[in-house]
Amino acid sequence: MNRDFQHVRHKPPRVLERPRELMVALPPMQSNVNVSRIVRAAGCCGVTHIIACGHPKIDYKIARDGADEVRIEVHRTLPPVLQRLKTEGYCLVGLEQTTGSQLIYEYAFPQRCCLVVGHERHGITDDVLKMLDAVVEIPVYSLPYSHNAATATAIALYEFCRQYPDG
Amino acid sequence: MNRDFQHVRHKPPRVLERPRELMVALPPMQSNVNVSRIVRAAGCCGVTHIIACGHPKIDYKIARDGADEVRIEVHRTLPPVLQRLKTEGYCLVGLEQTTGSQLIYEYAFPQRCCLVVGHERHGITDDVLKMLDAVVEIPVYSLPYSHNAATATAIALYEFCRQYPDG
Repeated sequence: MNRDFQHVRHKPPRVLERPRELMVALPPMQSNVNVSRIVRAAGCCGVTHIIACGHPKIDYKIARDGADEVRIEVHRTLPPVLQRLKTEGYCLVGLEQTTGSQLIYEYAFPQRCCLVVGHERHGITDDVLKMLDAVVEIPVYSLPYSHNAATATAIALYEFCRQYPDG
Repeated sequence: MNRDFQHVRHKPPRVLERPRELMVALPPMQSNVNVSRIVRAAGCCGVTHIIACGHPKIDYKIARDGADEVRIEVHRTLPPVLQRLKTEGYCLVGLEQTTGSQLIYEYAFPQRCCLVVGHERHGITDDVLKMLDAVVEIPVYSLPYSHNAATATAIALYEFCRQYPDG
């Protein structure tokens, strides 16, 4: 087979049939680089709304147009806003290794959900863990045994999009 | 349902039933940060061998133990080594948007394959494109319409691992 692959610089994006009901919630993060990278990945995935805590500074060189595309709602802490999201019907899905966490390979995401990310070093705090409806973990096979927080978030967003390719 | 999720700091990694026959090939990249991030993600995915071109410098603070775990074979350019991999039975799978590229959602990776990544700005060069057996693309839904190169690589590695959870 001799296929002829030619670059396509500006392929049109995939069009969602309905807006994504997927959100991302970030605690106060250690690194604004990671926050900015998550904003870029969220933009690519059609996520339009991120909850961030503390004093996030978005680096436009990293987030690119994601910085304009994604609304970033800033709070002091996560629990009150997560409580509100629960009442709005969002399933709160943590991304973490915990007791009771499910393999992301096998987890069926609810369509309306909020992916709750952990701090780079400290992970998801206990007050947030106890609010979650589910926890998913990305299997790791070898050292360093854990993905960077922004990489893990992008992988989880990808997996959601794979399960809901059209919104 | 009131689940009790408790952090598990050092869960043992998932054990592969056989060594991964997955490799990653990088052209000379613009950013050693991206190369280092790819090394970390590769380590987590159980990939033990990366081809890199040019003068890659691995930042240990980014790659973590991936820097020790993953063998990095350095070449001047990709085509000769890709030709060798072909004769060794590796399927060469590009990660790019091209004519004839397949949605990664639908692509079944061969078990023995080399994921060929593109330069951050210039993508995969034509001399490499014409050697590829397949090209996969990650759908994007909104601005900035493209994932960071290291993020895209981590997503593709994740997808491979999802298809071959045990090696």
